Amino acid sequence: MVWGGISSEGLSAAKLLLESGLNPVVLEARDRVGGRTYTVQNKQTKWVDLGGAYVGPTQNRIFRLAKQYGVKTYKVNEEESLVHYVKIPNEAPWRAPHAEEWDKMTMQEFFDKVCWTSAARRFATLFVNVNVTSEPHEVSALWFLWYVKQCGGTMRIFSTTNGGQERKFVGGSSQISECMARELGDRVKLQSAVCSIDQTGDMVVVKTVSEETYKAKYVIVAIPPGLNLKIHFNPELPPLRNQLIHRVPMGSVIKCMVYYRENFWRKKGYCGSMVIEEEEAPIGLTLDDTKPDGTVPAIMGKKRICEIYARVLGSEEALHPIHYEEKNWCEEEYSGGCYTAYFPPGILTQFGKVLREPVGRLYFAGTETATEWSGYMEGAVQAGERASREILCAMGKLHSSQIWQPEPESVDIPALPFVTTFWERNLPSVGGFVKFMGMSSFLTVATVVGVVAYKKGLLPRS
Amino acid sequence: MVWGGISSEGLSAAKLLLESGLNPVVLEARDRVGGRTYTVQNKQTKWVDLGGAYVGPTQNRIFRLAKQYGVKTYKVNEEESLVHYVKIPNEAPWRAPHAEEWDKMTMQEFFDKVCWTSAARRFATLFVNVNVTSEPHEVSALWFLWYVKQCGGTMRIFSTTNGGQERKFVGGSSQISECMARELGDRVKLQSAVCSIDQTGDMVVVKTVSEETYKAKYVIVAIPPGLNLKIHFNPELPPLRNQLIHRVPMGSVIKCMVYYRENFWRKKGYCGSMVIEEEEAPIGLTLDDTKPDGTVPAIMGKKRICEIYARVLGSEEALHPIHYEEKNWCEEEYSGGCYTAYFPPGILTQFGKVLREPVGRLYFAGTETATEWSGYMEGAVQAGERASREILCAMGKLHSSQIWQPEPESVDIPALPFVTTFWERNLPSVGGFVKFMGMSSFLTVATVVGVVAYKKGLLPRS
Repeated sequence: MVWGGISSEGLSAAKLLLESGLNPVVLEARDRVGGRTYTVQNKQTKWVDLGGAYVGPTQNRIFRLAKQYGVKTYKVNEEESLVHYVKIPNEAPWRAPHAEEWDKMTMQEFFDKVCWTSAARRFATLFVNVNVTSEPHEVSALWFLWYVKQCGGTMRIFSTTNGGQERKFVGGSSQISECMARELGDRVKLQSAVCSIDQTGDMVVVKTVSEETYKAKYVIVAIPPGLNLKIHFNPELPPLRNQLIHRVPMGSVIKCMVYYRENFWRKKGYCGSMVIEEEEAPIGLTLDDTKPDGTVPAIMGKKRICEIYARVLGSEEALHPIHYEEKNWCEEEYSGGCYTAYFPPGILTQFGKVLREPVGRLYFAGTETATEWSGYMEGAVQAGERASREILCAMGKLHSSQIWQPEPESVDIPALPFVTTFWERNLPSVGGFVKFMGMSSFLTVATVVGVVAYKKGLLPRS
Repeated sequence: MVWGGISSEGLSAAKLLLESGLNPVVLEARDRVGGRTYTVQNKQTKWVDLGGAYVGPTQNRIFRLAKQYGVKTYKVNEEESLVHYVKIPNEAPWRAPHAEEWDKMTMQEFFDKVCWTSAARRFATLFVNVNVTSEPHEVSALWFLWYVKQCGGTMRIFSTTNGGQERKFVGGSSQISECMARELGDRVKLQSAVCSIDQTGDMVVVKTVSEETYKAKYVIVAIPPGLNLKIHFNPELPPLRNQLIHRVPMGSVIKCMVYYRENFWRKKGYCGSMVIEEEEAPIGLTLDDTKPDGTVPAIMGKKRICEIYARVLGSEEALHPIHYEEKNWCEEEYSGGCYTAYFPPGILTQFGKVLREPVGRLYFAGTETATEWSGYMEGAVQAGERASREILCAMGKLHSSQIWQPEPESVDIPALPFVTTFWERNLPSVGGFVKFMGMSSFLTVATVVGVVAYKKGLLPRS
């Protein structure tokens, strides 16, 4: 059994299959495991997550794995106040009411229709930039609304406290993949980029660029959809999948950390979070990346921007960092970008339904195929485990009703409800577009306050 | 010298280099040459072009090759009347006035702004469908306007007489590639899909899926940009190119021909061209595909649609075809779709400038990199020859001013000017967007007439 896998999806799939008594192999293109998580250790930083880092309530699968391996989390602090989108089915956004209409619109068009003030529109742009590392005019409105919905709504996705950025892992996020890889031992083959998959014979034959050959009964392709293109398939993929994989590019992000001798911003009453809306500013959002014990003061941002930090934080000290780390995910051949794939207008309704449809003995994982926290480490685990269960089902070891399994809530990190507003509770149940429009008009008002607060000198730590 | 080439781009590049005294090799993924041209021969059809087929005035490079190989053309007849877009530089559309603004819009948004009647909007949709086999809400307005412009404008691209569909090749379009391949002899290696390119050593090392290795001083990658993803690069591609190739999918088209015992539509006074605007109709545009000598009567369309033909042509005979040919380009792994790559919103201005920028000793051809008739066979030849001259220049055999060469006009098939309207000649020269808007508003009025004529029972043969 073989995986053409690139990240934690492949590892979590293999782990589940190993636990089910099978004999998986994981083929990893890079010389390291972890995919879009990437923890670097050095003297200056102790450790730093240059890829996926943040976790939060409702991400119960990744918490389960972290707990099993004894990886602790710590809290990042902040507060925001946003509104929750509704009515798009997580597992089939193309069946939402008005799906076709919304899919033909870019998020930019959507904002132009519902946002009443230019401040609201600027914030809306930032909201897209930060969550899916792409531009509102690039993404389908339907897809983006689905994306936010399947993360639990705008409050859950954007919040630090009680949201997707509440926590980081002590020691870095790559540890989860490394622990899984250790468990799998020499079943994990590094520097084994898959270049062809042939299903014409009794066994599936997988070849790597380094000219090794593996044979398996089933294969999980645990990579972003666009990277399926790195593989030459025999027989060819079905037409819809062949076209889908050309249509879902990865976002664009350079993650960077600037390190300082001391945490001067906390002294000035700033938490280190900055929302920077200047046109042409190379950076949109920052977060404090100081270690939980207060050592190694750093600010996480998206590009080299000490001057901006200095201006926004009103401090000369920002101009004198002592260390810098950066990771340009756009140059990674085996990611194609980060954090996740986005859907341009028209693609989700036309091609979305084949995203995780098996092709012969090929099954598809990758966080893009998840229905909860797709785009996050949590979605990667959901996808990997689901694909493994599809194989167990194909082998007759599991009933098909068992393929999709809900995850019990983490005992240590339970989700708190968000306080809903009067309007959210009392809006007439007109359903679909009208209700949504009502809510998002409200959203634009609510968020402006947040933005002003940010721009006025950043939210103080609570 | 090696080509990771898939179609006539690679062959025309190799031909030019061979004539310059070099020793090229062409690696072709498929078991045939011709790429997106595909001529099938059989008893029922004699020959039929199931891929690229039409040529017309100003496509002087492909006419030059056809003449050299003694491949004749014949005329398809029809008349239309449209307007010419201006002001977008062919070689750098991202530098057009208002480039960013237009690139953020889909063509759908653009139409919503400039089209005054729903009939005009329906025709506009068809105009996009037919020319770039994709939907107005999928493509960037800037890109589509550039595409039309670099074909010589709306009249040239859409016209049969004096336009892109004026002619077909007697015997089929694949002959051009086959003749070039014959000239190149065993330098053309079929079934040699390239899976990796390594430029880290003195020579560029190219490996195929079938585990053959070629070494070369330079490589021309003569494939659509999205298919660059089939190749594993060492070192990795630069960030912008790495992301570009995930962002330019191929259009979607199934080309089909329905054959009849006799040409019943000409008897009824129809030319065989139908513009079908019904919602849900599986087909948009048809053309007569009867052989030049009047044998093998056939109608070219995009899907199985005899019932529609019958209704539109008002004839029972349409329900009784005697033969059928179809080619679903969406399922072709080594095309990814047809006819050409399209740019979703936001991509052209951000990534367009690296489309044909060499990477080390790699040069890029493919009709998508052309500046005249990009997307057509003509563009393929321009791109292949330009890339060859880039290499000759790198070798010191040619001055850089010689890389881009205009093509003398075909003596046999000269371009006629289109009659411009009073409005085109006399519109105030306000430049850029306003002028364009004025013209395209005019366009919508002009084309409605055409559409009505079509729908009223098709234009009679002139």
